[in-house]
Amino acid sequence: MSETSRTVPAVGMVGGGQLARMTHQAGIALGVDFRVLAAGPDDSAARVCADARFGDDRGLDDLLAFAEDCDVLTFDHEHVPQPVLRELERTGTVLRPGPDALRHAQDKLVMRARLRELGAPCPRWREVSEIGHVTDFAAGTGWPVVLKAARGGYDGKGVWVVGDAEEAAAVLDRAARERVPLLVEERVAFRRELAVQVARSPYGQVAAYPVVETVQRDGICHEVVAPAPGLAEDRAVAAQELAIELATSLDVVGMLAVELFETDTGVVVNELAMRPHNSGHWTIDGARTSQFEQHLRAVLDLPLGSPRTVAPYAVMANLLGGRDPDVYSRYIHVMAKDPELKVHLYGKQVRPGRKIGHVTVVGDDPADLLERARTAAAYLKGDPQ
Amino acid sequence: MSETSRTVPAVGMVGGGQLARMTHQAGIALGVDFRVLAAGPDDSAARVCADARFGDDRGLDDLLAFAEDCDVLTFDHEHVPQPVLRELERTGTVLRPGPDALRHAQDKLVMRARLRELGAPCPRWREVSEIGHVTDFAAGTGWPVVLKAARGGYDGKGVWVVGDAEEAAAVLDRAARERVPLLVEERVAFRRELAVQVARSPYGQVAAYPVVETVQRDGICHEVVAPAPGLAEDRAVAAQELAIELATSLDVVGMLAVELFETDTGVVVNELAMRPHNSGHWTIDGARTSQFEQHLRAVLDLPLGSPRTVAPYAVMANLLGGRDPDVYSRYIHVMAKDPELKVHLYGKQVRPGRKIGHVTVVGDDPADLLERARTAAAYLKGDPQ
Repeated sequence: MSETSRTVPAVGMVGGGQLARMTHQAGIALGVDFRVLAAGPDDSAARVCADARFGDDRGLDDLLAFAEDCDVLTFDHEHVPQPVLRELERTGTVLRPGPDALRHAQDKLVMRARLRELGAPCPRWREVSEIGHVTDFAAGTGWPVVLKAARGGYDGKGVWVVGDAEEAAAVLDRAARERVPLLVEERVAFRRELAVQVARSPYGQVAAYPVVETVQRDGICHEVVAPAPGLAEDRAVAAQELAIELATSLDVVGMLAVELFETDTGVVVNELAMRPHNSGHWTIDGARTSQFEQHLRAVLDLPLGSPRTVAPYAVMANLLGGRDPDVYSRYIHVMAKDPELKVHLYGKQVRPGRKIGHVTVVGDDPADLLERARTAAAYLKGDPQ
Repeated sequence: MSETSRTVPAVGMVGGGQLARMTHQAGIALGVDFRVLAAGPDDSAARVCADARFGDDRGLDDLLAFAEDCDVLTFDHEHVPQPVLRELERTGTVLRPGPDALRHAQDKLVMRARLRELGAPCPRWREVSEIGHVTDFAAGTGWPVVLKAARGGYDGKGVWVVGDAEEAAAVLDRAARERVPLLVEERVAFRRELAVQVARSPYGQVAAYPVVETVQRDGICHEVVAPAPGLAEDRAVAAQELAIELATSLDVVGMLAVELFETDTGVVVNELAMRPHNSGHWTIDGARTSQFEQHLRAVLDLPLGSPRTVAPYAVMANLLGGRDPDVYSRYIHVMAKDPELKVHLYGKQVRPGRKIGHVTVVGDDPADLLERARTAAAYLKGDPQ
């Protein structure tokens, strides 16, 4: 190891997905030693990071070995089990965020109970272990209701909108077989979905990004408009304050994303994520400090960077895989058409519907930006429109 | 190799310095396979790039082996000898820029002769092989004059301002011993130094960045202000047109930096560089398309990105090594003081005077930005002010 490497901290990110890839990209500028624990060399982050280690990113032995060379561990995903996190912590590993915070991103029952304690706005909900719990609940809210797996869901997986007792029973049966605890939530009559991100450092500093509008289809984030067009200033500030309060109360270190439903009367919390988040990819090209740099600054207990935007609006569209694996050959068209557009490809094998990249464009008119981002993402996907 | 890697091109960058490091950072977003040929694992780029190969980055054998796995080779420096470049080209390697263009960045005599042919504004100059050439020349221009090594100089090395025949003779003696051809140039009475960067693709597309002011001390670039404050619009456009004409006439592919002296009557060309350049580091944080992304787009023959700026002004200050190798521990202070400031550290061992990073800040008032960038760079250097 050179002299330099002994004077900078080593950050280990658990998981080798695109979040780790883009965190590595940010870490290059900070000059820290950044390493990832990935499943293999074809993982998105491992394809670009000089110091990729390979192993089971949820297993204690591989995590202990990985932690030995790191000053701080952070996470590309929420899937490291609590007992593993506790054991890592017990053996002296610095985990940011820590297990007590992460529980709220790992288990929706824990999250909902804590949010209720804190008085944060939530949909009506309850834990369910038998069909009577669902039908009782639906008697109060009306059908349909939303069943959610308390643990392990993402991108729409683990969420079922059920229209009657029969559909609910089928979900309960399957969950019982797979030993997945469930909760039921009212189906919120929302105008739109919003998200707000804050960073928090161990020192206690917080920085809030603008509230964004997220457009989901089939549970997958398709587009993000930053800031959310037409959002009343008082509602935006209230959402940022809510996210800051949650980050502080839950002792989050790093980035916290709070996914929200906007209703006629305010916002309710849908989900929490304690890592860089798809709703913040626009910050790479649209903010002075990207969420990835901010996450690193937070977990290193450095002063946070300015979340100020570089343009009135930024729009991000996810690039989902189509049938043709050759996305690169379509770069020429989108780059020639729109020289302002930023393309981000994750180096992942293309599979239909898989998030393989995103595009971002910034400017003054959100409708124009949305049209341009959508056009580019659809063209890069390559399927007939 | 995964399916993805077979559908994206592989770019090899020769040399493992900070230019390759920052090009890798840009390549992550483009999703191309990027590899570097570095001297060893502690090289700036090798410390962050997943695919670093090690060898002699000026030697034919190692370059041939490196080229085998690359669709296109490009360069972090100008030091690959012409015979090596020619042999690489003969064996089918795609070199961007090619040897015919690179000659003009490698040999100041070739560059000056060609610029004279093209009618580009230059200082008065001539080749010198004996002291009489210098004294004859100085009889026309007056002393002092500037002696330059035709090949191998950088960052002020290979440039001597000599006040009389005796000083000139000493330089000539040393150059003769080292078999370095020399030229003499008039010492230009310049108001300030400027630089202009353009990108050019094999297709022939060009994109010009704003003309910047560069502040040099001891031959090393210390600060860059983009765009150059108070530069008359017609003079700025003329400088951009000059750079475009040179890029086209010399068949440059990739980034071209033209370093200029601004005099009372116009500009004259000082130096050329055919790669990303220190005068363009501000583009990472200050332009829609960084010079590093632009260089990759050009050498891959992709449509070029918009060089538009994200703020009225950007200021970059180089971070030079001081006596204390521990720069990182001083991050806290500069980041707390100026949350808008962007820090870029190159992962290089700290040595006094060595370029080990840079800082950038963007905004409305160049004097304010310059003050902030200087303060941060001086503090990070760590020496008493």
